[in-house]
Amino acid sequence: MTHEVGGWSGTDEGPAARAQLRCVDAGRDRSYVVWTTRGLVTEGRSPDALHALVDDRQVLVVATPTVAALVGDCVVGTVNESAASVDLLVIAVDETTKTMRAVEHVCERACTLRLEREAIIVALGGGICTDIVTVAASMIRRGVRNIRLPTTLVGQVDASIGIKGAVNFRGKKSALGVFHPPTAVFVDSSALATLPRTSVSDGIAEVLKVALLGNRPLFDLLEEDPTEILDTRCTSGRGDEIVALALEAMLTELGPNLYEDRSYARRVDFGHTFSPVLEAGLGFRISHGAAVAIDLALSFAISLERGAIDHDAFDRVVRVLKAYELPVYTPHLTVDLCRSALAEAIRHRGGSLNLVAPDGLASVTFCQDQTSIERSLSGAIGHLASMHARDVVHAT
Amino acid sequence: MTHEVGGWSGTDEGPAARAQLRCVDAGRDRSYVVWTTRGLVTEGRSPDALHALVDDRQVLVVATPTVAALVGDCVVGTVNESAASVDLLVIAVDETTKTMRAVEHVCERACTLRLEREAIIVALGGGICTDIVTVAASMIRRGVRNIRLPTTLVGQVDASIGIKGAVNFRGKKSALGVFHPPTAVFVDSSALATLPRTSVSDGIAEVLKVALLGNRPLFDLLEEDPTEILDTRCTSGRGDEIVALALEAMLTELGPNLYEDRSYARRVDFGHTFSPVLEAGLGFRISHGAAVAIDLALSFAISLERGAIDHDAFDRVVRVLKAYELPVYTPHLTVDLCRSALAEAIRHRGGSLNLVAPDGLASVTFCQDQTSIERSLSGAIGHLASMHARDVVHAT
Repeated sequence: MTHEVGGWSGTDEGPAARAQLRCVDAGRDRSYVVWTTRGLVTEGRSPDALHALVDDRQVLVVATPTVAALVGDCVVGTVNESAASVDLLVIAVDETTKTMRAVEHVCERACTLRLEREAIIVALGGGICTDIVTVAASMIRRGVRNIRLPTTLVGQVDASIGIKGAVNFRGKKSALGVFHPPTAVFVDSSALATLPRTSVSDGIAEVLKVALLGNRPLFDLLEEDPTEILDTRCTSGRGDEIVALALEAMLTELGPNLYEDRSYARRVDFGHTFSPVLEAGLGFRISHGAAVAIDLALSFAISLERGAIDHDAFDRVVRVLKAYELPVYTPHLTVDLCRSALAEAIRHRGGSLNLVAPDGLASVTFCQDQTSIERSLSGAIGHLASMHARDVVHAT
Repeated sequence: MTHEVGGWSGTDEGPAARAQLRCVDAGRDRSYVVWTTRGLVTEGRSPDALHALVDDRQVLVVATPTVAALVGDCVVGTVNESAASVDLLVIAVDETTKTMRAVEHVCERACTLRLEREAIIVALGGGICTDIVTVAASMIRRGVRNIRLPTTLVGQVDASIGIKGAVNFRGKKSALGVFHPPTAVFVDSSALATLPRTSVSDGIAEVLKVALLGNRPLFDLLEEDPTEILDTRCTSGRGDEIVALALEAMLTELGPNLYEDRSYARRVDFGHTFSPVLEAGLGFRISHGAAVAIDLALSFAISLERGAIDHDAFDRVVRVLKAYELPVYTPHLTVDLCRSALAEAIRHRGGSLNLVAPDGLASVTFCQDQTSIERSLSGAIGHLASMHARDVVHAT
């Protein structure tokens, strides 16, 4: 690698030997709208904003079986009022089948239908459905429009309102994925009415996450009447308020770092450090919401153990998790599992731990002290086991 | 869908029933640099710009077998001077195996190596290799850095300098793909020296495409000494000039419509209307360059048939294609195949034909007149068959 100075032959060396030919601007302007609505999915009400987007395009609606049976006809009928064509693809998916195979299944249908670049893929279902459809939409003709109609609480306040889509790969949670902004998201509270009770619990785990990041009014609202929220599937007036506050708070958290390229210190990672490893370790036989609940409880237990919060804050968080019928512990939550989760987090967050650590009831900070966290794990897990056991005693 | 006016109950209707909650700005600033260099790939010369990018990161180099055997050690050694770690993955791929399986193969290695978000995947090979790596890089941790070291002429002037990556799907050319801007592209002329002669011909097809779009100096340069260019594998002084002009022209064409969302009238689609259907129809047993050459010849034959150009322009283009040992005809080029290609183009280009039609030797316009084009197909194919036959007679 010696550089001859002067007298270059024109073939071996010289000014042209390393030249910056061009800096290509690859920036891209995009935006999307999140709408709140009531009855769009279940009754085809107030569909003007949807029609304005559909605008005589080809549409492929992708739905999960239960959702398709409940509201598939309604959504297809509503879209059909303004579409060039509408087709419905029903895919049975869960965390174990949230893979590239499911993505390719959607892509195959898109190919069969010869979807144009101007076409729209509508995701009608929970976060798993919108995740798969987002990845597929990003690859079909190098990216087609994607409208999301999330039908679960976790979808409406978390999984389906950002720009990420992902699938599990080689047993790792969301190991492959894309950033593909949707065209629009319609958050329809009426879709929640038919949810299983446990699905609402799962969604509340994400609502609690965003409340505990710093939204005390939302936390207070959650504490008010958990039974009502679960009984009404979060469709009461209070439920609407909870969804609206959570959605607004979540969008505010996501906005400044939408592509996760500004900072590895991400407040929205709260509850998502130990949970992905727990989910994968259990072969996804635990719901995402349950895993997040355990992660939140563990995060508070760690802060308790480290003296960053008092017993009252810890107890209140555990109490509200339990009131929403969420777990705070599982025997699978071992020190080893937590240590591997911390190592994975460091890899995933640019080499720093960036653990979201509670320092109050609705206040968090970032902790980079891996040693201190690891030291507190055994004690923290012990707190959770004891709270869990207390619950079991009460229940029997 | 009746709307009650006034007196809304707060649960069924009212101002909140359909509200735009938030417009989310999902814009993204990105850019990449295209460097011309000599000896980086073959001798590790002038690697400063590369080292500045590698900057102590994890690197996975993905190369095709022949390239890996020739320069794999050199590239790995050069990268290793500034990387935290370097691994080499050799993938044997061609158009028939440019599929999601190949992408997943790269992703699997990335998973095994636990590549971080800050990691870099280097594509070292031709356009097929850079295509597969681009798709993989876009999905690993939702997008990691991607440096391209294209080693074929078609890669250096076309396939590897834009932001697209694609794989074939269900027998359709590049049916799944992504936009994922690279971090940098290093165009190293020394990499061409060991190319098979036919590979240089394939690259020249893309150079001719961009010349015929409106770069007469480049066309004249191509006409000067085809034998020298083929013999020297485009590494002579003239070859360097051809690569530099083609690269500059191509980046100028791509720049204003990088994401192909500004217009469906894309000049760079020249030579790429009939060729993808021909390639797929032949099960990819024809090279991309050969298919593009036939498409270019056909486009000129159509213009000749429609009276848009004279015989001299047609003859010169056919002559230069043949001089670069490229085909202008195959018996698989039927009217039916061309008609299906036109229909596919309309689907792919937002409902309009947008056929790039020569109206001079290095001048094109857009033609939307499907009927007129279809009417000219039989005559145009006849011209090509006759030019082809003349060649056969000369050769015997």
